[in-house]
Order: sequence, then C-alpha cells, then structure tokens
Amino acid sequence: MAPSATGEPAPMHLPAISKASTINASVLHGPHDLRLERRTIEEPSLGELQIAVKTTGICGSDVSYYKKFANGDLCACMPLSLGHESSGTVVAIGPQVSGFSIGDRVALEVGIPCGQCGICRKGRYNLCKRMRFRSSAKSVPHFQGTLQERINHPAIWCHKLPESISFDAAALLEPLSVAIHAVNRASPTPGSTALVIGAGTVGLLTAAMARQSGCAAVTIADVDQGRVDYAISRGFATHGYVVPRPLHTSSSSSSIYNSSNSGTSTPYDGGISTPGSTLSFQSQLDSAKMLAADMLALTNSSSSTLLIDDEDDGVDVTFECTGKEICMHTSLYATRPGGKVIMVGMGTPIQTLPMSVAHLREIDILGIFRYANTYATGIRLLCAQKRGNAGGYTLPSLDDMVTHRFRGLDAAKGAFELASRTIDDNGNLVLKVVIET
Amino acid sequence: MAPSATGEPAPMHLPAISKASTINASVLHGPHDLRLERRTIEEPSLGELQIAVKTTGICGSDVSYYKKFANGDLCACMPLSLGHESSGTVVAIGPQVSGFSIGDRVALEVGIPCGQCGICRKGRYNLCKRMRFRSSAKSVPHFQGTLQERINHPAIWCHKLPESISFDAAALLEPLSVAIHAVNRASPTPGSTALVIGAGTVGLLTAAMARQSGCAAVTIADVDQGRVDYAISRGFATHGYVVPRPLHTSSSSSSIYNSSNSGTSTPYDGGISTPGSTLSFQSQLDSAKMLAADMLALTNSSSSTLLIDDEDDGVDVTFECTGKEICMHTSLYATRPGGKVIMVGMGTPIQTLPMSVAHLREIDILGIFRYANTYATGIRLLCAQKRGNAGGYTLPSLDDMVTHRFRGLDAAKGAFELASRTIDDNGNLVLKVVIET
Amino acid sequence: MAPSATGEPAPMHLPAISKASTINASVLHGPHDLRLERRTIEEPSLGELQIAVKTTGICGSDVSYYKKFANGDLCACMPLSLGHESSGTVVAIGPQVSGFSIGDRVALEVGIPCGQCGICRKGRYNLCKRMRFRSSAKSVPHFQGTLQERINHPAIWCHKLPESISFDAAALLEPLSVAIHAVNRASPTPGSTALVIGAGTVGLLTAAMARQSGCAAVTIADVDQGRVDYAISRGFATHGYVVPRPLHTSSSSSSIYNSSNSGTSTPYDGGISTPGSTLSFQSQLDSAKMLAADMLALTNSSSSTLLIDDEDDGVDVTFECTGKEICMHTSLYATRPGGKVIMVGMGTPIQTLPMSVAHLREIDILGIFRYANTYATGIRLLCAQKRGNAGGYTLPSLDDMVTHRFRGLDAAKGAFELASRTIDDNGNLVLKVVIET
Amino acid sequence: MAPSATGEPAPMHLPAISKASTINASVLHGPHDLRLERRTIEEPSLGELQIAVKTTGICGSDVSYYKKFANGDLCACMPLSLGHESSGTVVAIGPQVSGFSIGDRVALEVGIPCGQCGICRKGRYNLCKRMRFRSSAKSVPHFQGTLQERINHPAIWCHKLPESISFDAAALLEPLSVAIHAVNRASPTPGSTALVIGAGTVGLLTAAMARQSGCAAVTIADVDQGRVDYAISRGFATHGYVVPRPLHTSSSSSSIYNSSNSGTSTPYDGGISTPGSTLSFQSQLDSAKMLAADMLALTNSSSSTLLIDDEDDGVDVTFECTGKEICMHTSLYATRPGGKVIMVGMGTPIQTLPMSVAHLREIDILGIFRYANTYATGIRLLCAQKRGNAGGYTLPSLDDMVTHRFRGLDAAKGAFELASRTIDDNGNLVLKVVIET
Repeated sequence: MAPSATGEPAPMHLPAISKASTINASVLHGPHDLRLERRTIEEPSLGELQIAVKTTGICGSDVSYYKKFANGDLCACMPLSLGHESSGTVVAIGPQVSGFSIGDRVALEVGIPCGQCGICRKGRYNLCKRMRFRSSAKSVPHFQGTLQERINHPAIWCHKLPESISFDAAALLEPLSVAIHAVNRASPTPGSTALVIGAGTVGLLTAAMARQSGCAAVTIADVDQGRVDYAISRGFATHGYVVPRPLHTSSSSSSIYNSSNSGTSTPYDGGISTPGSTLSFQSQLDSAKMLAADMLALTNSSSSTLLIDDEDDGVDVTFECTGKEICMHTSLYATRPGGKVIMVGMGTPIQTLPMSVAHLREIDILGIFRYANTYATGIRLLCAQKRGNAGGYTLPSLDDMVTHRFRGLDAAKGAFELASRTIDDNGNLVLKVVIET
Repeated sequence: MAPSATGEPAPMHLPAISKASTINASVLHGPHDLRLERRTIEEPSLGELQIAVKTTGICGSDVSYYKKFANGDLCACMPLSLGHESSGTVVAIGPQVSGFSIGDRVALEVGIPCGQCGICRKGRYNLCKRMRFRSSAKSVPHFQGTLQERINHPAIWCHKLPESISFDAAALLEPLSVAIHAVNRASPTPGSTALVIGAGTVGLLTAAMARQSGCAAVTIADVDQGRVDYAISRGFATHGYVVPRPLHTSSSSSSIYNSSNSGTSTPYDGGISTPGSTLSFQSQLDSAKMLAADMLALTNSSSSTLLIDDEDDGVDVTFECTGKEICMHTSLYATRPGGKVIMVGMGTPIQTLPMSVAHLREIDILGIFRYANTYATGIRLLCAQKRGNAGGYTLPSLDDMVTHRFRGLDAAKGAFELASRTIDDNGNLVLKVVIET
Repeated sequence: MAPSATGEPAPMHLPAISKASTINASVLHGPHDLRLERRTIEEPSLGELQIAVKTTGICGSDVSYYKKFANGDLCACMPLSLGHESSGTVVAIGPQVSGFSIGDRVALEVGIPCGQCGICRKGRYNLCKRMRFRSSAKSVPHFQGTLQERINHPAIWCHKLPESISFDAAALLEPLSVAIHAVNRASPTPGSTALVIGAGTVGLLTAAMARQSGCAAVTIADVDQGRVDYAISRGFATHGYVVPRPLHTSSSSSSIYNSSNSGTSTPYDGGISTPGSTLSFQSQLDSAKMLAADMLALTNSSSSTLLIDDEDDGVDVTFECTGKEICMHTSLYATRPGGKVIMVGMGTPIQTLPMSVAHLREIDILGIFRYANTYATGIRLLCAQKRGNAGGYTLPSLDDMVTHRFRGLDAAKGAFELASRTIDDNGNLVLKVVIET
Repeated sequence: MAPSATGEPAPMHLPAISKASTINASVLHGPHDLRLERRTIEEPSLGELQIAVKTTGICGSDVSYYKKFANGDLCACMPLSLGHESSGTVVAIGPQVSGFSIGDRVALEVGIPCGQCGICRKGRYNLCKRMRFRSSAKSVPHFQGTLQERINHPAIWCHKLPESISFDAAALLEPLSVAIHAVNRASPTPGSTALVIGAGTVGLLTAAMARQSGCAAVTIADVDQGRVDYAISRGFATHGYVVPRPLHTSSSSSSIYNSSNSGTSTPYDGGISTPGSTLSFQSQLDSAKMLAADMLALTNSSSSTLLIDDEDDGVDVTFECTGKEICMHTSLYATRPGGKVIMVGMGTPIQTLPMSVAHLREIDILGIFRYANTYATGIRLLCAQKRGNAGGYTLPSLDDMVTHRFRGLDAAKGAFELASRTIDDNGNLVLKVVIET
C-alpha cells in the first residue's frame, strides 16, 4: 500500500469540488423497505478520498438486513445503506493524502479500525473493539454502506487497482479476503488435504485459496448439485461431494447447507439451539460421522487404491462455511488427529458439539472474523491470474462468479430479492449478484 | 534421552536373572474389586528394562476405574492393574540396551507409541493410533498399570533421574507432563495473563507452568477455598478466585468444580448433555459471563488502578482443567479476542457452547491429549528448582503435593478410597495420594 | 505410511529366498575409480525389505565423490557405492513386517535416523546425530548407496507407490523432498513472492514447490539461459532472470552459478573463503545489491506499473540454492524486511556476509539439511498431478526432468561423467541423469 | 494502551499554555561538543501530549554519537539532542487526545512508525521504512532526543505508568523492550536452555527475560568478572561464565566483549572485516569452538552428573548481545541442532562466519531491530515484580541497575563521559547512567 495519507502538507490546489454535494443513496428503513434517497456528502476531509462507487456485490448479511432489518443479534436502529463488497474510482482527494490521483481505480476495504489500540498495533486489526464496518448495524450511528453514488473513505483503506483487475473482481476482493484470512489461519503445509463444507461464494473462494496455498486435494461439499458441479468444473476444488437430501433433512425441514448467500456474517437461524431429545441428537452425530466417512472415502478412492499415511483418519483442515451445527459435527469427524477446523461461516451462535472428538485428537478449532492484511495479497493473486503462466495454479476467474448484474441504485430491490435465491427464474445458478452505479 | 536401545550387540554378560519370576500385583477385577495377586514376569526382552516400581501416584482416571471399572466411554473387559504416575529403579537390562546400569533411578513414561506412523515421525506421538498406555482399558488386551512390584518397560521410555529428584517428584512428572504440554500448546508470550479453572493436581501444575513460561499474572479458580489458598501460598498462581457456591449450584446439585482428582482422562459425568429449557440455559450463560467478569476484575484491580492495554477484555490464555461445560462457558467469556482456550480437563464429551463468542473474537480452542516430549523438560525444570538461584522462578515443590502416602500394594484399596475425596478425616486437603512399593 | 514393521509375529511362510545371495554393485574405490563388483547380500532381517533397485538418479554429491572420493569435508575411507535418489520393487520381506507384498513398487528414503533420541521424537529426524545416510562417507563403516542390484532397507523407510508414479519420478522424490522441506521451513503465506537462485534440479523443484505452496510470483535466476528458459516454459517459475556473465565473473573466473548438479550436499569450492582486498569485497557487495535490484525490477515491472505494498523492498522469501557466497549476498539484498532467506544449496562453509542487512531488517536466515516427513507429501503431490483438474496448479512433470538415461550398473561411469556437465555433446540441457538397474 | 488519540472533538477547554514556550535542551554539535541551548516548543498539536522529561538513560548509541557524531554508518548532519530511554509527566494535552490527564506519569516509546504501510498494519512496526526514532541521525531533519526539558510526543506512544513504577524503571523500559523483543523472536519453550553473550544492560535484561519466559538454565558470559558476578547475584542468569582474557585477546588488542554500553544500535568497530590470513582465522574458529564447549560444560556439570537429552549438543537459544564476530562464532558452535541464534547486539556489519555450522544443523539465525508491542508487556512485568508473590519469578530490580545519576541537563557531559566506561573512579561497576531533568 504505497499510496497513503501522510503528515506532509496537502497539495496546494485541491481539485475544485464544492464544499458539499448531493448524491443518490439506497437506504433501508425497515424489512424490505428500501428507498432511493438524496443525501449530502461533504468534501473528503483529512486523509480521505472521495470515491465514486462502481460495483457493489450483495452479501448474505445484506440480504439478512433487507429481510429482517437485522443480522443475527444485530438490529438496525436507524436508516442504513447496505453494501460492503465494493470498488470505484477516486473523484476527490482530501488534505494530506499522497499517492493517489483523480481517476485512480480502487477496491474498498470498508472496515475502519482505530489503528491505535494494542490489537491494532499487533496487526490483528479485524478484532479492534472500535472497528466501524460499513453496512453493519454494530456501531451507532451506523457506518453507512457503499450503495451510494459516492462516499468519503480513508485513503489508507482504498487499495489501488492495476488495469487488469475489473471492478467486479475488485468488489469480490472482499469475500476473497475472508477466504485468504481463513487459509492464513489454517496455514496448511503444501500437500495437505482439505475439506470445505458449503459451496456459496465464500466456500468456493475458500476452496480455491486452499488449492492456492498448496493443498493437494480439496473436497467441497454442498447439498446443491449445481454448485458442486460449478466448483469442480471451474477448478475451485479437486473433489466434489453432494450431500444426499434424505440424510440431511432428517433433522430439519430446510436444507442444512442453504448457505447460498453465505457471507461471513449471516446467522440464518440464530438463537438457542435445542438438540431435542438425547436420542435424536445421538443419531444426528451418527449421521455426521457417516457423512464424514463418505466424504473421506471419496477422496481416498480417487487418489489411488493406496492409503498414504493414514489418510482414512481425516483431512488436515476442514473449513466450515455454513455455520450449521450439523456441519460442525461433520467437520470434527472428518478431520484428522492434530488437524484443524476453521469456523468460517457465521451461524448458530450456540452449538451442541462432540467436543471430546476435538479434545482427544487435538483438533484445533479456530474461528475467523472477517480479515486483516488481505487486500494486497488478493490483488497480487489476481495479477498472477492474469499472467497465465504455463503450469501454474491461478485462482479461478472472479468475474465469472458474477452471475447476475443490476444497473443503478434504483434496481437494488430486485438485486436483493434475487440474491436471496440459489436459482433464478431460468434455472440458472445464482452465485454473486452485483449492483453497478 | 542419551541412554537408549541401540542396534549394537547386547552386553556379553547380562545380569543373572532367572527366565521368569513371580511378583505381586494389585489387580482390579470390577468396581471396587481390587485384589492382590501373584503374576509371572518374563525377563526384559530386546530394548527393555525391568523396573522395580517405587512410587505410583493415584490419578482421577484410576479412581474412575476403581469405582466403575470404566473411565468415561472406556470399559475394562479384563483384569487391570492401575497406576501410570510412576518411578522406580532398574533391576534388569534386556538385550541391545545401552546407557543404563542396574540401580539407575528412573521416571516411567507409560504410553508407548508405535514410533513408525506418520504422526509419530512428526513428533506428535501422543496422537498415535497404536499408542498403548498403561492402566488404560483402551487397547485390548489392556496394557497393565504400574501397581505391580516390577514391570518390563522399553528403555527409551525410561527417563534417568539425577539424585536431586525424589521418587515422589518423579512420579509426579506424569501430571507435570500434562501441564507442560498444555503450556506448550498455548505458547504464551512473556508477560501474558492466564486463567486456570480447577485447582486439582493438573490445574495446580498447569498454573505453575504458566508462571514458569512467563505469564505475569496467573489466576486460579476453584470452588474449594482450601485449594485456592494452597495454590497462592505455595506460589502456583498469583491470584486466586473462590467460586461462590450459590452461584454455581443454581444449575446443578453437585459442585461444578469437583475436580479433586482431575487427571486428564476422567469424565465424571459423561454422556449427552441436556441443557434443559432454553431459558435456564441462557441464564447459565449469563452466570458464566458474570463469573468471568468477576475473575477479570480481581486480577485487574490488584495489578493497579490502571488498565493496561484493554485488560478488561480478558486473559490471553485460559486453561480449562475441570471438563465441565459451565467452565468452558466461563473460559470463553474470560478470554480476550485473539486469545486461546486450552481444554485440559477431560469431561463432558458433548457440550453446548456459545461458539460465536470464540468465532467472532478469534479465540482458538485447543485440546490436549496427554503429552509428548515433556519428560526431559520436566526433569530439567526439577533440576533448576533444586539450584535455588537468587530471584529465579522455580516450580513449587512437587514433593509437598504428596499429601498422603500408603505403603505396599496391599494398601492400595485405602489409597483409592482416599483419593476420591478432597478432604481427609482430619479435615486436611487431599491433593496427591501415592502408593509406595 | 500405513505399511510398516510391527511387533506382531512374522507371517508364517516367508518367501523362500536363500539365506544369502550374490549381486552386482557399482563401487567407488577412489577418484574416478568406479568398479562393478560382486557382493553378498543377506536375507532381509527384522523389519526390513529386500528391494530390487530400478532407478537411481545422480546427484551433485555423487559426482563430487566420483571425482574426488570426497564431498566437501567428508572423505571416503573405504569402498563406497554411490546413489541415494532411488526407487525399486519389493523382492523379499523380513520378519515382523506387515503391509507389504512381493512386487510392491516403492520409493526409498535412504537416511535412517535412530528413532529414539530427543530430536527424533520431536519429529526433526533429519538432525539426528546417529543418522546413517546411504552413499555418504559420514558414518563409518559407510552406509552403502543404491547403485546395487538389490539392497535390504527398513520397511518403514520404504514408501509404497501408486501405479501412476513412475520409477523415474519416484527416484526424483528425493530432491523433491529437499524442495518440500525448504518450503516447509519458509512457510510462505499465500500470495507471497519468492526468489530462487540457482536453476539446477533442486532449484527448479524448490521454485515449483514455492508455486505449489501459494507464492504468486516466483522468480528463478541462473547464469544459464537454457535452464531459465526451461524453468519458465515448464511452469517451474513465473519469472526468469539470466545473470549477465560479465557481472558475475568480475570476482571469479568460473561461473558463480555453476550449480548444475546442485544436490544439497555439494560444496564445490569448500575451504576458507578469502574475500581478497577490502575494496574488491565492497564492490562485490555493490554488484550483489545491483543484481538484487535488477531481479526485483523484473518482477515488479511485469506485474503492473503499480507498486503494491512496497514490493520494491524485496521478496518475501529467497531460496539460495547454489551455496555461493555472492549468491547469499544477493539473497540478503533481495529480501524484504521481515522476510526469510532459506539456505538450500550446500556450499562455501565459511562465508563473509553483510550480516547487518539481515540483522537490521529482521530477515531470518534458515538453513535446511536434507528433509524430514516429506515423502508422503511428495507422493500426494504427484498423485494430484496425475488427476489434472481444471484450473489447478500441479507440479511440472518430474519424468520430463530426466534428460539422460543409462542402463545397467556397468554404465555408471558414463552417467557420472555426463552428470558433471550442464550440456551434452548435442548441446542439449543436462538436468537429471538416471541409471536403470 | 487504553488511553489514546481519538477522532472525537477535543475537550472544550485545553490547559492554558501559551502557543509556544522556551525550554532548555542538551544539543550535540559535533564530537564531544555538547551544548546547553534554549529552544522554542510549540503547544502539542493534534493527538500529541507535551511531556516534561524526568529521566533519560544513556545508551551505547548515545555515547557513540557523543564521541564521533556518528553511530556506525549513520552520521549526524545537524545539531542533535540525544536520549531515547525516557520517562516523564504530562504537562499539556493536544486536541483529540482522550484518556490522559495533566500530571500523568508516562514512559515514552520514542520510535514513531507511519502506522499505515503494509508492515505497520501487520504489526511489525519496528521495520517501518518511515520510522522516525528520537536521537537517531537516520531521518533528516533528525528527530530530536529526549535530553530536553519538555517534548511533544504522540499520545499513542506515551504509556501510562502505575504508581509502583519509578521514573528510572520506566526509562529502562526501553532496553527492556529490546530484551522482550529478543525473547519474543526466540519464543523458547519452557524448560529450554539459553546462553547470553555479553553482560551489558541489554545482555542482562535479555538474560532476565529468558528466565522470565521459562528457560530453566540461562548462562551469561562476559569478559568482565564484575558484571558476571552482578548477573548471578541479582538473579539475571543462573550460570555465569567469565571469558578468560588471554584467550580472547589473541586476535585483538581490545576486549572482545567490551559491550559495556551495548544498546542495540552501537557498532563499535564498523567497516569491513578483514579476517586476516586463513590460518589465523581457522584458529579463531577453533578458539570459538573451545569457548563454546567450555560454556556448555559449565552448565551441564552444574545441573547434575547426568546428561539429559543430549545437552552436550548445545543450548536451545543463544542471544548474541555484543555484535562481535568472534561472539557470533561462539554462538553458532554453542547452539544445538534445530536451535536459534538471536542477533541482539549491533556490531560488525560484515562478518565472516562458519555458515555451514548453521546450515547443516538448521540453526536459525534471527536478528532483532529494536522492538514492537513490548511496552505494555514491560509494564505488566514490572507490576508483577511489585506484587512479590511467593515462589514466583520476577524480574530483578530495574531501579538497582541505575548505578549513576546526574541531575540537570547541564550535567549531561559528565554523564556521557562516565557512560563510556565500565568502572567508575571508585572501582564500582558502571551499568546504567541516567540524567534527571
């Protein structure tokens, strides 16, 4: 991040923008109550850039706010613009910013930590207590999302883009950041095996990042055949497993893997879990154990008839991207002694888990909360992707993950409606819906 | 471990022992059915030593077998000698062993891994699937414990003792190993803060190891005032917290911290947890949260009126040494974002936990199963203890932890009865009961 | 490593082989004095397999022994069979071995650690003091290499091969192991940048492993244009840099990068370094600094006109694969603050280095000595290679690295002569020379 | 670091200080040319505090500037106030600072990183390229040191002190930070063994931190008997080794360990090393090898007659605190395979080292440059020290390390003269000289 705010005097002549101007903003006032409004925006202040937003991807947490005016435990208490997967161009430059020019294309990192507390200084700024994150209702007044024509944003959280990266791909740097962070926490050694449960945007990108970081076999599992097929055909994963529906619906009327919009902050069915009777809970565990065995069998048989190094004991890392309790069960049973389970997908806040499985086998359970220090990595990986070297692994195309596109903030309502589905009216996969402004 | 079995020819003249001899052994045949029996012991075979057992400490798992002929899910299916915290002297030396002499004093590491599988070669031999552990019913036929006059044991798992370490202290190297392993997994940076829940033998030793590894403040919590006082007065911990009884008995008729014999393998009340009604579970969580806040307040107020670096956010590491679900709740609430919870105490196999607390704050949950590569460390620490350098931290005396002593294998029954209590008939603390042979 | 020696009784009927048999062996008696001899081989003893060697690759250390009857400081003091990059088939099975059948194809891990000392138990068995390594003169009597018709080898150091892996590729698992170990020690985060200096077999494989482990840009540097071209065209690296000869020959009449046979144990010009006059040493450093800047400029300019995150400060990891002092200089200057330099190539034992460059910028200098726990990883990676999934990175073909092949032990002399060159008589690249038996 | 600059509006009524005021400052104009001058100081600006400096310790780099107007390669090019080990009280509070009150006592962290570049965000801010460090000539104009009556300093780099920590001890938090950082980089497991070469302020504190972080045996070595005795009697180390003078002066007329003022930034004899003839260099290595063996023998014999776990192979970590080449040789020979050598003391920029010793035994060579995220740790450790719990290791008294005290900035010259000696006129040890203002 070479360009940044500095302590040097501001350039003598700032671009001539009026002190304040008026913009359109998409603002949520309650469940399904999305309005297009006019807002006033000040000129960028010290250290800030003004960004004309170009593309915003819709995340599962956005859909949750749209439907319930809440996301898990977080309830919005005032009008809120959604959107946090965004890219745009620089249209004005505040004082004491250097390294940026009008017209620069940027990806926005929309969480602003305090930068001063102990945890920020140690580099884990995603855990900063004073973090303000756009489109989230956590801080009050809410930090408004990017579904606005223009926003002012600290220059140090704007990441310059090379020409080769599109605005779409740049918007997807946000969920890619989650995947990068997940893999950084897992830090698999090359040649490891990985299992990814849930093939939504984050699950797919996590699988791709697992491959990128050297996992030799990456199995992705989902209830949706289309998503699993997509994952394999595009190279996100090396093996796919479609969870049989009778099995998983025994304990629930809805899909256990309906993580279609799985950002990382969407608890679908929060609240207290009620494992029901002891008997049925044990049978749930048994199902999870069988499921895990099935997934492992798939990988092992395909690699060869030869069992290398006790591979039947489980994968080295499981990335749980659904937030479902039963998927955590499966994760614990599918991971080898000494391995890791990474909790990626937000979900059921309270879970009943066979903890002794982790305890006795020293399986580390590591959660991730958003990301830190990932954007430069993501940009570097997208650059590598474009070089197209012989033999080299590159991430699958992020542009291709954008399956549906809406133009203009007035089309936002349609975008949210579609983003809550897994299949569109034509039967096509809904992966990532973006709004262009 | 300089002395070891080698591929070199055996010494020409082995000590003249008869091919086989007869020994006394304490053997458990069913719940409370402990018998003194005669057994035949062969001469030590290739790579083995014959050890005359001198001291064996009673662990919580021993007590569990004694009472129920089972330990958690593991049921004994044939007569079983108990005991795995042991020291003794070398009385015979098998072929191809070098570096040992008759009369050498040794501590016994009683878990024998295969030494050949992938996980053994990577150094995490405690997770070896083919591990045989003395006094455990896991492998069949059971690998017999040390409550026998003499045993044959692989030389590489016998650790030579310097004169300065007593047989008692050497027996306690086993629970100390658990504590060393726990701290190795936590790897706290110097100046960290730690919380230890449960002040049984393992909890006490874990607290001491946390101090040893550089934690500046170590709080130990237990329901038993006597244990907490002991921990503070002997320097195991820097702060003590006595859990108020009304608080913890609201959800349970029995003590939540009755971990008096907490070895690491004793689930006291295994089976499926039943969180009861949702309402009472939420109030349980609230209690845990209050308890955690109380514990933190104690440490913070005592350090100064000054809050350094957001200390109110929690400790860097919590060592959960009771295996109780409610203590896991407290652990999660008491740990700072980015911190660690180490599951030390075996216990409730299935637990209902507020996983989002760990997930959103990136608190790593790490279990430990026994230990690996700890005996040399333990011996080095006990040696340092004896030097008594100015200003230096040394572990509290392990000898002093032996509060009760029984002589002869025929006294074993009395030892097991006492070891299941926290206070003896005279109202004195029961910490570690040993049997001398 | 599922199959292994166990403590169980040997199979009732061992394959009927005679107690001892006679084989051909290629034996070195002095510099260039390679003889084909008859040797007696016993039947495999406890825990051993008898292996008919199929392919042995020639390594730089083999060439060194062939030429000088010594390798660096190590002088052979008795006849020595060379060869340690090997694969073969099981022809006889010793007592107490399970999991293997006659005819199984295996890769040989030819270093046998004691398995019992502290460092073995901790998993770093490559550092075992009692390690015996085939074809090395270190242990006396020397542990004979694989250029023999058949050898007896411990079953746990024989790694079973799936059908998809050829004997050639299996032999190359040995240098690949060096590369895996190098990357494990570096543990780059995904998206890192790497520089590999030296494009011999080990350098090429290290570059490929850096890509495999997620490095987004891997630059390989060598004086030999042919090797650099090979590296890029086959996908070992993403960027290539040919070191200009006038520059590097200023301080030496010979190529600074003549690492053509760079195994990891070949010091080409051992002994005390004499940096000459202070003046010329400083100019050497200046050359190294310029060289480093050139290499960095190459990568940066090609990625885009945009400098991401201070990329001009250096790469995240440099793998020095030549063992040359001037290459260590370049490595230190080319690595970013907080980065790592991995010493892969054995070489000048005493080096004059600008240590303050590493010190003040906290560049970690990590050496590697052979490898530990790498064969299962290597086999898994080769299996992944054969699946050929869409979009996935797979290692370049190891089979293609075998540029020259000799049949029969009597052809060994020719093989060694050729292996000491970088170009054959037809002007073709000499990469890996193998001998088939 | 709870108190900090925030984005909130400044308190309505700032303490009434004039816009600018006049202060005394000790300013160095050239070698030995130290003058007391009047300077103008502005009121603290946004995010700053004004601090009345109370105590400043003299570091080796200060002495170097005082004598040569340069420190290693860094030459001062304008008048420079020295001093960077400092504490003081808050006398004025700038806008947008919260959490501080007039009269608060603080320790000053005097290196100000940019806070915005990639390496700052990752938490390794000591490596920030734009770092400005008080009293160093690196940035131009030079960032003035603390030997001034008052300075303005960013609030987030002022660390509040509890009553129990004196201004002297607070000033010594700076060298303690170096020691903390050194130990954090080494991250020894509990029970490790350590060797510290050089018993100046930083060496002593590093030894103490090695003990604090759980090393069971810490040997400190120096040529000065007085310092070694001091280290042992005060509990900084467990074992002391006085380097015999005939041995170390064979290659140099001056002491090899004259690190009396060893801060971390003092190269005593910079420039190109000239190893002289090959013969004498080899004898230097032999001396170093013998020295290392002697040091190890000391520790081993004292622990017991028993060699645990190959202790003769070397210590787990060596902290090299002198910056001398021959001490690096000794460090490499004294460290066990798989161990670490931490380069703490700045010194000879170019060194001729037996790199193969590190390479073949996988000894990691890690440098440290100042420190990051250490002050909160240091303060916590000093608080723990004051509690004086039973049995607990606490750092030796930092106050006692202040052997000489000068009052007033006009006494600075005397302080610098004394700080360059190891013994005062009365034959007493000179450890830390402070100037009170």
